[in-house]
Amino acid sequence: MPNISNKGRNMPESPIRKLVPFAEAAVKKGKKIYQLNIGQPDIETPKAALAAVKSNNIDVLSYSHSAGFESYRTKLAKYYRKNDIPVDAQDIIITTGGSEALMFAMGSITDPGDEVIIPEPFYANYNGFATASGVNIIPIKGSIEDNFSLPAISEFEKLITDKTRAILLCNPGNPTGYLYTREEIQQLADLALKHDLFIVADEVYREFAYDGVKHHSIMSIPGLEQNAIMVDSVSKRYSMCGARIGCLVSKNPEVMSAAMKFAQARLSPPTFAQIAAEAALDTPDEYFNEVNKEYTERRNLLIEGLEKIPGVRVAKPKGAFYCIAELPVENADKFSQWLLESFEFNKETVMVAPAAGFYSTPNTGMNQVRIAYVLKKENLERAIEILKIALEEYNK
Amino acid sequence: MPNISNKGRNMPESPIRKLVPFAEAAVKKGKKIYQLNIGQPDIETPKAALAAVKSNNIDVLSYSHSAGFESYRTKLAKYYRKNDIPVDAQDIIITTGGSEALMFAMGSITDPGDEVIIPEPFYANYNGFATASGVNIIPIKGSIEDNFSLPAISEFEKLITDKTRAILLCNPGNPTGYLYTREEIQQLADLALKHDLFIVADEVYREFAYDGVKHHSIMSIPGLEQNAIMVDSVSKRYSMCGARIGCLVSKNPEVMSAAMKFAQARLSPPTFAQIAAEAALDTPDEYFNEVNKEYTERRNLLIEGLEKIPGVRVAKPKGAFYCIAELPVENADKFSQWLLESFEFNKETVMVAPAAGFYSTPNTGMNQVRIAYVLKKENLERAIEILKIALEEYNK
Repeated sequence: MPNISNKGRNMPESPIRKLVPFAEAAVKKGKKIYQLNIGQPDIETPKAALAAVKSNNIDVLSYSHSAGFESYRTKLAKYYRKNDIPVDAQDIIITTGGSEALMFAMGSITDPGDEVIIPEPFYANYNGFATASGVNIIPIKGSIEDNFSLPAISEFEKLITDKTRAILLCNPGNPTGYLYTREEIQQLADLALKHDLFIVADEVYREFAYDGVKHHSIMSIPGLEQNAIMVDSVSKRYSMCGARIGCLVSKNPEVMSAAMKFAQARLSPPTFAQIAAEAALDTPDEYFNEVNKEYTERRNLLIEGLEKIPGVRVAKPKGAFYCIAELPVENADKFSQWLLESFEFNKETVMVAPAAGFYSTPNTGMNQVRIAYVLKKENLERAIEILKIALEEYNK
Repeated sequence: MPNISNKGRNMPESPIRKLVPFAEAAVKKGKKIYQLNIGQPDIETPKAALAAVKSNNIDVLSYSHSAGFESYRTKLAKYYRKNDIPVDAQDIIITTGGSEALMFAMGSITDPGDEVIIPEPFYANYNGFATASGVNIIPIKGSIEDNFSLPAISEFEKLITDKTRAILLCNPGNPTGYLYTREEIQQLADLALKHDLFIVADEVYREFAYDGVKHHSIMSIPGLEQNAIMVDSVSKRYSMCGARIGCLVSKNPEVMSAAMKFAQARLSPPTFAQIAAEAALDTPDEYFNEVNKEYTERRNLLIEGLEKIPGVRVAKPKGAFYCIAELPVENADKFSQWLLESFEFNKETVMVAPAAGFYSTPNTGMNQVRIAYVLKKENLERAIEILKIALEEYNK
C-alpha cells in the first residue's frame, strides 16, 4: 500500500469535530444537547438572498468569471466603501468561502518554510491551512485577563525573523470575541511597514461589534495599502454559511495577480451562491440592527451567567459570537467529552469546544473552552444552568 | 512593498485565459467569435437539477457535512455502482468542483518535492495545482500519430524515482479526447502495484465515450483498491460547470482520512449546488443518449472538416469533447492571437486554445491547438470554414 503524504498525516483534526462521535452517541441515547460548540448561527438568512436563488432563470449553469460576477464585485465594493473600506471591484476576488480566500492569501505570499505570526488563541483551521501550505505558524500568546487584546508590539518584534512574511489577525476574533481598537490596528500597521510584512486580516465578523464600538478594518489605514490583505465571507454576516462565498481584497497588484492565478486554476466560485450573496447586499440595515441587538443580549446573558459559576473566568467579548472561558477543571478536553458521555441533567447536556485546539503552543489553554452564543436566549440560559450543575458534579 | 511568494510568482497563467483580452478587443470591434477554446458546453442543464434548487425550502443556509450531504453521497454511490465502480457512500468526499478533489488528492499523497508522472498533453490546470502543492510534474509524451494513447510502460518505468508518488491520468482525456482501453488501465495498475504508486484518475468525462466504446474506471480494477484515487465532477456530465460540485473517491482509508481533514479545514461544499447535483442523479438515460449523439455528430463533423484542411493533422478523439490538431503554422500561440487581432472573414473569426500550455515540456506542441467541439453543428461547420480561410491567408 503506497504511503500518504507527511502533510496529509500532519493535517490537524478540527478540535470542534473531535467530539462529534460522542455527541452522536449521546443523541442516540436520547440526550438533548445544547450546542455551544460551533459557530453556526440560528439566525434566518435574509429573504432577499434566498428569493434570488429561487427566481433564477438559468438554463445552462455555466462557469462564472474566475474572480466572480462583475456585478457582484461592483456592488460589494460599494458595501465596503460604506464601511470605510476604500476599494473598487478590481481589488476583489470572489472565493469559495473565507477559507479559500485564506488559502489564496497564503499561497500568494508564503512559500514552504515561511513564518506567519498569529495571536493565539486563533481560529483552529488556520492550523490546517498552514499545514497544507507548509507554512509555520509562530503564535504570540494573548491573555484572558486582558480579554485577549493585542500583545505588546515589542513581543511581536522578538518573533520576527527573515522567514516572517505576515501577521494574521482575526478581527473581531474567533474564538476570543476581541475587537481590536484603532490604535492597535495602527500599531500593527506601523510594525508591518517597518519590517515589510503583510497583514492578513480575517474580518468576517465585521458586523458583529457590540456596545456601539466601531470595527476598524485593516484596509482603512492610510499608507498600508500595499501590505494589507483582507479575508471576508458572507457566512456569518448574512447567516449564509452553506453558500460558501467569501472574498480576498487587496490594493496590492502583485498579490492580486498571484491570487488571480490560483483563482483561475480552480475555474470559478459557485454560481447559485453568488446570486444569493449579490442579492444579500440589499439587506436593510434593520436586519443587522436586530441581529446585533439579539447577539448583544445573548452575550450579556452568557457572560453574566458564566461569571456566576464559581471558578469560571471569562474574557469579555466585544464582537463576533464567541467567548473563551476558563473552567475550574484541569483538562477541558476530558471535561467536554465527559459532558457528552457521562453527564446528563434531566436528559440534557451541553457541548462546548475545548480551547486547546485554538492554541498552537502545546499544553496551552487546557482549562479553557470556547463557547459560541448562537442559541436563543431561553436555550442559552438553560445551557448555562446545565454547565453549572455539570461542573459541580464533575468536581465532587 | 513586501514580496509575494515564489509560488505566487511561478503559478502558471491559464493558457486558455491568455487570449481573453484579445478576444474582448475583437468583440469591441464588432467581430463575432466562434469559441472553440473552452470546455463550456452549450447543452442545457437537466431540468430536475435546476428545479430542485428553485423549490428548496431553506430558512437558514447552514454548513453541510464536510464530506457533503449523506443523502447525496448514498445516491452517488448507487450511480457509481451502476457504472461498474464498486464504492459506498463512505468512499466519497463531495468537493467544490473536480478542482478541489484534485487539490485534496495532491495534498493527501504528495509533499513538496515529490513527483507525479502525467502523460502530456494534459489538462493545463494540473500545472497550477502542482505549483500550488510544490510538486514536480514529470511529463511523459504522448504522440499525435497514436491519438495520444498510453505511452509504453517501459517509458514510465524510466521516469520512476524514489520521489514518484503517483501517476495522474485524465480519462477520457482533456485535451486529447483519448479513451484508455481496459488493457492500458490494467497495465498502469500493474505498474502502480509493482512500484507502490497511486493512480489518480480524473474521470469527469466518463459519459462522453463515443462509437460504443466503454469507459474503464481506475476504480474497477480488482486488486488496485488501495492505490486508486478517482477525481470526478458534475460540471461536464450534467452541463453544470457553475455548480462547482465534484468528489474524491477512494477505498484507501488513509487517503480518505487525510482528505477528510482537508475537507474539514474548509468546512463544507456549497449547499445549493449539492441540492442541484443530488437531483441531477435522477436525470434519465435518454438525456445522456441525446447528448452523446449530439457530441458524436459534432466530433465527426469537426474531424472530417479539419482533415480536409491542407496541412492539418488531427488526433481522433473517442471521448470528452476536445481534440488536438496540428496546424500548418510554426507557432500556434501567435496564430491564435492573430486570429483575434488581425483576421476576420465577413466580420467573423474563431478562437482556439494554443496547445503548448497543455504540455509541461518546454517548446512542445508549438504547432498544435486544442479545439473544443462545444458549439452547435451549424456554428461548428462555419468555424471550420473560417479556420480554413484563415490558415490560407496566414500562410500567404
